[in-house]
Amino acid sequence: MTQNIYDDPEFFAGYRRLPRSVQGLAGAHEWPTLRGLLPELRGRTVLDLGCGFGWFCRWAREAGAQRVLGVDVSEKMLTEARARTADAAITYRCADLETLELPEACFDLAYSSLVLHYIEDLTGLLARVRRALRPGASLVFSAEHPIVTAPRQPRWTRGADGRKTWSIDGYGNEGRRVRDWLAKGVLKQHRTLATYLNLLVRRGFTIVHVEEWSPSDAQIAADPSLAEERERPMFLLVAARA
Amino acid sequence: MTQNIYDDPEFFAGYRRLPRSVQGLAGAHEWPTLRGLLPELRGRTVLDLGCGFGWFCRWAREAGAQRVLGVDVSEKMLTEARARTADAAITYRCADLETLELPEACFDLAYSSLVLHYIEDLTGLLARVRRALRPGASLVFSAEHPIVTAPRQPRWTRGADGRKTWSIDGYGNEGRRVRDWLAKGVLKQHRTLATYLNLLVRRGFTIVHVEEWSPSDAQIAADPSLAEERERPMFLLVAARA
Repeated sequence: MTQNIYDDPEFFAGYRRLPRSVQGLAGAHEWPTLRGLLPELRGRTVLDLGCGFGWFCRWAREAGAQRVLGVDVSEKMLTEARARTADAAITYRCADLETLELPEACFDLAYSSLVLHYIEDLTGLLARVRRALRPGASLVFSAEHPIVTAPRQPRWTRGADGRKTWSIDGYGNEGRRVRDWLAKGVLKQHRTLATYLNLLVRRGFTIVHVEEWSPSDAQIAADPSLAEERERPMFLLVAARA
Repeated sequence: MTQNIYDDPEFFAGYRRLPRSVQGLAGAHEWPTLRGLLPELRGRTVLDLGCGFGWFCRWAREAGAQRVLGVDVSEKMLTEARARTADAAITYRCADLETLELPEACFDLAYSSLVLHYIEDLTGLLARVRRALRPGASLVFSAEHPIVTAPRQPRWTRGADGRKTWSIDGYGNEGRRVRDWLAKGVLKQHRTLATYLNLLVRRGFTIVHVEEWSPSDAQIAADPSLAEERERPMFLLVAARA
């Protein structure tokens, strides 16, 4: 079972204050890129794996999706999602993605934002998602980039020229990483970029696009603290076809 | 035009002494993995982009390939390749891969070992290689991993725990990198892993397998200096289908 850190009061309080929680998709720097990987949603059935407060579920409906299923392990987040949603075409379900059961050949898009790096049995989840997708359907997801999840102790250092560099180690050693982020002892799963892609290929997905997200010039101009995210890729974004 | 560093006397003298030059494929740590990505070669026509001393060309013939074309920018290396080859089914051609012209729908495998990170116009090369491949043919290549090509100044540092970490910066800034390796001023091209894959997809290739090579336990036992290569991936290996 995945650690349900979102129901930890300290983590939840911190998470609730993040720009992406307060402003929704507009508060997520990688959203414009991720949106660009999405298929046409008009009339489609959409699955959101790790839907949180339901921002994407509601956006998908605005983009024309016919039905949306949002799944999350955190009952706290789903309570807020439901309170913010007045739309009978959106269903929220509380479930652990490690064991989630899904109907067969039912969805046109499976979407997941910054959730898969928490999943221990990604092979199993992808197998279940693949079966739940219609032929030709899309899987679009973001995850923390393996360069970020790899290190034992994540840290920036400054070179002699004053520029920041990211220290990487343990890249080839996949598995659990313990992080202090919003709360102590957040558990993440490091896997290589190759593993993400090979798992997809072995499950019968075709890789359509891979993005190693860095902020744009405009984003850095608006928020200069983002500049360091040019030095290493922060997020991995993938679009695949069933 | 690609810098022809291989014809630089100092570089060539150093390169000639590398285990992979002296022992051939057996001297290349990543070879067993790369070999595992190759299709059946019996009766097939093979293209080796950057064939060097011709080790792979000769191996492909031993593996049953019907005809092999080895291309390299270095006349010095091809002179040695020809001297070591007594096989009319192997042809060596001196050409710059940036402008190499190839016959259409002619090859069953395009292979390239540690060469593509020297190529400036990879888009153009992949387009020409794609046209030269038969439908369903394979492209299998290795390149320096983008984590290795990215930094302005490649370097290992030691953490407080004495373990080595690799410093990464400039990952999102693609383009030329100047390295001192065997000779001063070796020019390489940094591109992200996403770019390698997206260029293939846009040219109509299907990604079959991606490997971020690290040494095996047995390899580290045989050569303990390899252990650090577990900390960051040294080589990118890709298999794609036309």
